[in-house]
Amino acid sequence: MGKIFVVGFGPGSEEHMTFRARQAIEQSDLIVGYKTYVDLVRDLIGDREVLRTGMTEEVTRAQAAVEQAKSGRTVAVISSGDAGVYGMAGLIYEVLMEQGWEPGDDPEIEVVPGISAVNAVAALLGAPLMHDFAAISLSDHLTPWEVIARRVEAAAAADFVIALYNPKSGRRTQQIVETQSILLRYRDPETPVGIVKSAYRQRQRVDVTTLEDMLNHEIGMLTTLIIGNSSTREYHGRMVTPRGYQRKYTLTGANERGRLDPMPWALGSTKD
Amino acid sequence: MGKIFVVGFGPGSEEHMTFRARQAIEQSDLIVGYKTYVDLVRDLIGDREVLRTGMTEEVTRAQAAVEQAKSGRTVAVISSGDAGVYGMAGLIYEVLMEQGWEPGDDPEIEVVPGISAVNAVAALLGAPLMHDFAAISLSDHLTPWEVIARRVEAAAAADFVIALYNPKSGRRTQQIVETQSILLRYRDPETPVGIVKSAYRQRQRVDVTTLEDMLNHEIGMLTTLIIGNSSTREYHGRMVTPRGYQRKYTLTGANERGRLDPMPWALGSTKD
Repeated sequence: MGKIFVVGFGPGSEEHMTFRARQAIEQSDLIVGYKTYVDLVRDLIGDREVLRTGMTEEVTRAQAAVEQAKSGRTVAVISSGDAGVYGMAGLIYEVLMEQGWEPGDDPEIEVVPGISAVNAVAALLGAPLMHDFAAISLSDHLTPWEVIARRVEAAAAADFVIALYNPKSGRRTQQIVETQSILLRYRDPETPVGIVKSAYRQRQRVDVTTLEDMLNHEIGMLTTLIIGNSSTREYHGRMVTPRGYQRKYTLTGANERGRLDPMPWALGSTKD
Repeated sequence: MGKIFVVGFGPGSEEHMTFRARQAIEQSDLIVGYKTYVDLVRDLIGDREVLRTGMTEEVTRAQAAVEQAKSGRTVAVISSGDAGVYGMAGLIYEVLMEQGWEPGDDPEIEVVPGISAVNAVAALLGAPLMHDFAAISLSDHLTPWEVIARRVEAAAAADFVIALYNPKSGRRTQQIVETQSILLRYRDPETPVGIVKSAYRQRQRVDVTTLEDMLNHEIGMLTTLIIGNSSTREYHGRMVTPRGYQRKYTLTGANERGRLDPMPWALGSTKD
């Protein structure tokens, strides 16, 4: 019985890949991945056998990886970001569950964690994730929009920093509009919003704007957004969320505590 | 003017560090970090100058890093996980904001993203983060408990997978008890829960249990938990969350869709 590495290689530039991700690719007989992902790590793959498929063929990739592992091979299923976040890891397990293996008889699976989009994007934006955050995909391909909208609302009401994956595609353009409208019911129009396209890749673009103005910026298939919480501030084109609501630490001296602005946030309340 | 790298080196084992994190440490004149973090990457640091402080001295570390960068040095502020998630990145910016720099005059900051605890823990647990998730710290040191409890409830009601950072410490033992009780109002007692201690370090421990039984397992300072959503399943000691609620893909054939269990989840409803 072979082994499957499910490898997230991070945003795409080799410097943000982990040693283990590189090692997993080097130790594999077969590399399975979406065309764009294969191209991003072409140098590492060398002359290993490669199975490249289109973007929507995740199920084919997962099934092929399991079949090849059953025949004794070591397979690396690769993707950008973290394969454990909206990634291929779950689908590999779903295929195994469907096949009804006895414990110990099934192929060994090693999920190799990678830098996920939310972490890559946050690093480029400054420090937006210093407090509790929610990651929400706006794609309604496999999830009803009502479920997604309810999550956006819950996260907005409870003052989470919010990362939005898959905000928009060519045909799917209204979800981000509705999301903005839900968020504006709970957050100040001036709330900082970070919009990052192609983090750490060619044509990277980093914008910090506001909740009110976000739709006037380019948002597409390669974009991830981070919506600040009620205490996130803009600083020289970056986003900074303080660590907590009660500043027990002082930065410059004993009088610091007295000079803080009152917290604009109140439990469960909306602006209106 | 010098530069500050804010470096997350991942869970702690060198193989899950990125190339950029290693490079940042190698390019720095001074390494600033909590004692335990410095020890974890001792080999990489070599004979570079080191400023080690205690766990609660984050403000001291941030201020020292800024002072040293002002004097022209290249400083690496290091921590485990991702320095952008509940980490040092925000505090560095808070110190700069407090000092009132003009744009362009302030020290250059590069946040180097790392594998965060939620990603490391998820990889060891299988594939729990295949759908929307919320990260919540149960530490009420800087945040009122009411805010935290409200977030747990919002995330539970909207069926997020939930990652719990800082679930418990020596003196802080009740938050995880109250959290379980909130979660049980919205989720089945049999919901899979993953408990991981010291991911990818010595004395690593990975348990998959249930919401009902979670408090009968060891939970402490070095533990991160992941609570499944309504569709998360246990598989051979791991946790798997399917990718969506509407399974538009088939795994073994055309009849697959008809054999699916009905979804137990309904918008905003509780079990009772």
